Amino acid sequence: MSDRLDAQFAFLNEADHLKSILRASRLIDDTRFENSAEHSWHVMLYALVLADQAEGSVDINRVLKMLLLHDIVEIDAGDAPIHGDFDPKVKAAEEEQAAKRLFGLLPNDLQSEFIAIWREFEAGESAESRFAKAIDRVPTPVTNMEIGGGSWSDYNVTMDQIDQRVGVPIEHGAPGVWAWLRPKIQAWFRRN
Amino acid sequence: MSDRLDAQFAFLNEADHLKSILRASRLIDDTRFENSAEHSWHVMLYALVLADQAEGSVDINRVLKMLLLHDIVEIDAGDAPIHGDFDPKVKAAEEEQAAKRLFGLLPNDLQSEFIAIWREFEAGESAESRFAKAIDRVPTPVTNMEIGGGSWSDYNVTMDQIDQRVGVPIEHGAPGVWAWLRPKIQAWFRRN
Repeated sequence: MSDRLDAQFAFLNEADHLKSILRASRLIDDTRFENSAEHSWHVMLYALVLADQAEGSVDINRVLKMLLLHDIVEIDAGDAPIHGDFDPKVKAAEEEQAAKRLFGLLPNDLQSEFIAIWREFEAGESAESRFAKAIDRVPTPVTNMEIGGGSWSDYNVTMDQIDQRVGVPIEHGAPGVWAWLRPKIQAWFRRN
Repeated sequence: MSDRLDAQFAFLNEADHLKSILRASRLIDDTRFENSAEHSWHVMLYALVLADQAEGSVDINRVLKMLLLHDIVEIDAGDAPIHGDFDPKVKAAEEEQAAKRLFGLLPNDLQSEFIAIWREFEAGESAESRFAKAIDRVPTPVTNMEIGGGSWSDYNVTMDQIDQRVGVPIEHGAPGVWAWLRPKIQAWFRRN
C-alpha cells in the first residue's frame, strides 16, 4: 500500500508544475497571463454552471474529470495557443509522449483510467468530450471582450478565424452558448 | 434563456477573481505563493487520485463538486491560513455573506444547488465532506517538506500544531493517507 501511495504522490507532486505553464489568455482584471492549472479549475466551473447548455445527453461527472485532466500533458508539451503557429501532428505526438510519462507515474489502474479519459477528450467524439471541448473554448473570448482584446490583439485575430477556431467547437458541443456569444463578439469586432 | 445565460456568465466572470486570492502555501518549485483557483484544481486531482483512501463509502463526483466550489467565498472573505490568527466565528459569518452574494449571481436553481454543496462541505458531517476536508489539508505539508519548510517556517509551526490542525481532519477523512504522511512530517521536524 505504501508503494501505491508513493506512486500516487509522485504524480501529484509532478502535476503541481501545471501551475507554471502559462497560456496566451489573461485574467479578467488583465494583471497577468493565466496558467493552465487555474484555467482547468475555471473551465470545470464553466462546465458545471453551463451543463444545461450541452448538446445531447451528457454525464457531467465524466466532463468534469476530462477537464480536470485535459491539460496535464502541457507540463511536458507546453501550451499551444489556438491562434499561434504550430504543427498539430507534431503537437499531438508530443502530447502522447507526455501522457505516457506523466500518467505513467501512477499505479497501473489509475494510469489506464486517466489515459482513457484524456484520449476520449482528445478524440472529441463522445457527447461528453464535445461538450468539454466546447467549454474549453468559451472563457478566453469572454475575457478578451472585458479587457480590450487580450490574445486577439496579440495574435491579430479576425472574426473569420474566431468563427472557425472557436465557433465551430463551441457550436458543436454547446450551440446555445455560441448563439449567445457570437453576436457579442461580432459587435466587439465592429467597434474595434 | 438569454437572461439565464447573462446570470451564468456574470457568476463565471466574478469567479475569475479566485485566481488572485493568494494562500500561505507555495508552489512545489518555491517560486511563488499559490492562488486559491489553482489550489482548487490541485485538490480535485488529489481527491480523484486518492479516492481509494476515503474513509467509508463516498460519491467521488460529489467530492469533486465540493472541492470545485469550496474556496469561491474567498473572493469576498479572503483566505484564512490554518496557522494564522483569525476568529473562526467572524470568518464563518464573512464566508456566509460571501456565499450569498457570489452564488446569488446565479439563476435560482444553480444558486440553491451550489449553496447546498458548499454548506455540506463546511459542515463536514457527510462522508463526502469529511474526505474533501481531509484532502484539502494534504498538499501543503507535502509541498512544505519539498521546499524546506514553507508556511511552517513562516508561521513557526510545531509538530503538535500539525497533529491538531492538519492530522485530525486528514485522519478523519483519509486515515491511510495520514498514516503514510505523519512519519515523514515527524522525521522532517526532527531534522529541522
